[in-house]
Amino acid sequence: LRGLLKIYPNESVTALVNVADDFRLHGLAISPDLDTVTYTLSEQVNPDTGWGRAEETWRVKDELERLGGETWFSLGDLDLALHLYRTQRLDEGATLTQVTLEICTRLGIRTRVLPASNQEIHTQLKVQGQGWIDFQDYFVAQQHNVAIEELRFEGIESASPGPEVISSLEESDAIVIAPSNPFVSIKPILEISGVTDVLRERRQKVVAISPIVGGAALKGPASRMLEELGFERNSVGIASLYKDIARTLVIDEVDSELSPRIESEGMRALTTDTIMDTPIKAAALARAVLAEVSLAEEE
Amino acid sequence: LRGLLKIYPNESVTALVNVADDFRLHGLAISPDLDTVTYTLSEQVNPDTGWGRAEETWRVKDELERLGGETWFSLGDLDLALHLYRTQRLDEGATLTQVTLEICTRLGIRTRVLPASNQEIHTQLKVQGQGWIDFQDYFVAQQHNVAIEELRFEGIESASPGPEVISSLEESDAIVIAPSNPFVSIKPILEISGVTDVLRERRQKVVAISPIVGGAALKGPASRMLEELGFERNSVGIASLYKDIARTLVIDEVDSELSPRIESEGMRALTTDTIMDTPIKAAALARAVLAEVSLAEEE
Repeated sequence: LRGLLKIYPNESVTALVNVADDFRLHGLAISPDLDTVTYTLSEQVNPDTGWGRAEETWRVKDELERLGGETWFSLGDLDLALHLYRTQRLDEGATLTQVTLEICTRLGIRTRVLPASNQEIHTQLKVQGQGWIDFQDYFVAQQHNVAIEELRFEGIESASPGPEVISSLEESDAIVIAPSNPFVSIKPILEISGVTDVLRERRQKVVAISPIVGGAALKGPASRMLEELGFERNSVGIASLYKDIARTLVIDEVDSELSPRIESEGMRALTTDTIMDTPIKAAALARAVLAEVSLAEEE
Repeated sequence: LRGLLKIYPNESVTALVNVADDFRLHGLAISPDLDTVTYTLSEQVNPDTGWGRAEETWRVKDELERLGGETWFSLGDLDLALHLYRTQRLDEGATLTQVTLEICTRLGIRTRVLPASNQEIHTQLKVQGQGWIDFQDYFVAQQHNVAIEELRFEGIESASPGPEVISSLEESDAIVIAPSNPFVSIKPILEISGVTDVLRERRQKVVAISPIVGGAALKGPASRMLEELGFERNSVGIASLYKDIARTLVIDEVDSELSPRIESEGMRALTTDTIMDTPIKAAALARAVLAEVSLAEEE
C-alpha cells in the first residue's frame, strides 16, 4: 500500500481492510488492522513494531497492571484515544465505515480506507488441545506459537460487504492482494458475500503478492499455517489459494524456481524483489504490479 | 467518612455509595461517586479538585481532543485505567459490588465500600428550556449553571439494593448521612427499595449532617437545587427532607439560630463546626456525631 501511494495519486487508491480481527476489550472497540493502516498512512505508526503509535507511552497500561487488569493486549495511551473515539461513535450509531472516514479525515489521510464489512466477523482458530479460540488469544496472547487445525469466521455468512467495497472492486483499474496472511487477513475479506464473485469476474486485473519468501513468512504465522492447514509451505501453496481470483502471483527472486509450478496451477508468476525494506523498493514492487496489470489489458 | 475513619477501626466502617451518576462514555463504565470514595480512601485523590487522581496526566485526553472526540468529561490516564478494569470485569459478568471489592482490595482499602445497587439507575433532571437531561450533562457539561424543575431516577423502581446494603443499615451502631447533595447523591440511595424503610425503623441511630452552611453549599448545586425544587435554602430545608429517617441534623455554628425551627420540624439540631477543612476537624465532627448516637441509646 505504501508503495502504491508513492507512485499513484493517494486519493485514487482504496484500501479494503480486514475487520475479522476486531474485538472488544475493556469495553472498547478495537480494530487492529484498520488502525495499522491509518497509523501507517498518517505516518504515525511505530516503525520498530509495525503496529501501534510512534512515540507511544504506557501510563494507562502500567496503572491497569497495578490494578490487576488484563494487559496481554498492549494498549498505548495514544492508541487508546483512538479506541475511545471509535467506541463512542459506534455507540452513538455510526458505522465503522463512517468512523474510519472521520478518523482518516482528521489524520489527513486522502486514501480511501474501507472496512470490509460493518457487521461483526470474528476469526476463530481450532488449536490442538484447546478447541476453538479467538484470534487475539491465538495471535497476541499465545504469540501464534500453537498449531492450528482449523479456521472459521464467525458471523461471516450474514455479513454484507461495507459500503463501496464491491463498487471499488468493480471500478478499480487494478486490484492488488497485499502480501498479508492469506488465512487470517485476506480470507475473511474474500468470504464476505459478493467479494470473491467480483474478483473472479475481474481476475485479469488482480495481482497477488506472495507473503512467503524462501519458505518463510517475513512476519507472522503465514508459513506454518500453510503447512498446518494442508498447503505447501511456499508460494505454490499461495497460488493454490488465489488461482481462481488472481491472474498473477508475484514471487520473490529467491523463489524463481517455483515459477513453472505456479504457472501449472494456472497463474502467471512474476518474479521480482518482494522484500519492501525501503520505500524505494516498495515503489518498485508497486510499479511492477501495475505494469503487470497494464500488460494484461493489452492482451 | 474520612473523619469517621480517623476515630473508628476502618474495617468496621461501611460506605454506601450512590450509583445513579454512573454512566457509559466511550464504551467505558464510569462510577464517579465510587471512584471519589476509593481514591479518597486510598489517599490517591487529587487534593485540589476533590475528584480524580493526584499526579494525574492527560495524554489520552489530549490525543482524543486532537481526534475531535468528546472531552467534556475529563478522563485522566490513571483514572482511565480504573474504568478499563471495571468495564472489562462487568463485561465478564462480575457485579459492581464484586468489582468495587476487587478495587478496594487492590488499593489496600479496609473500609467496606458498597454500591447502593448493582442495577442501573440514571439521575435525570428537567431543565428549563431543555427538557430531561442526564446528570453528567447537567453537572459536568453544563457545570450545573442551569435551573432545574424536576428530578427523576430512571430505573430506580426496579433496582434492588446491592448485597449487604440493607444488612449494613440494619446492623450498624450508627448511620451517618454525609453532607452530600441531598437530591442527587443521597435521594437515589434512599429511594431504592427497602432503604428508607430500614432507616425509618432505625431513625434513633441516624444522624444527618447538613451540607448547607450560611445558606450556601460548600460545593456543588445543593443550595440552588433546594430553592428550585421548592425547599427553604438552608438547613431547615434539609431537615424537611430528612426528618422521617434521621433523629438528628448536625448544622453549622453559623446557623445556630435555625435550631428551633429544625426542632419544630421534629428533628434534634446539633450545632457544631461542620466545615471539615482539616483532618482534625473532620475527626471532631465524627466524634460529635457518634456521641449524639450514644446519647440516643441512653434515652
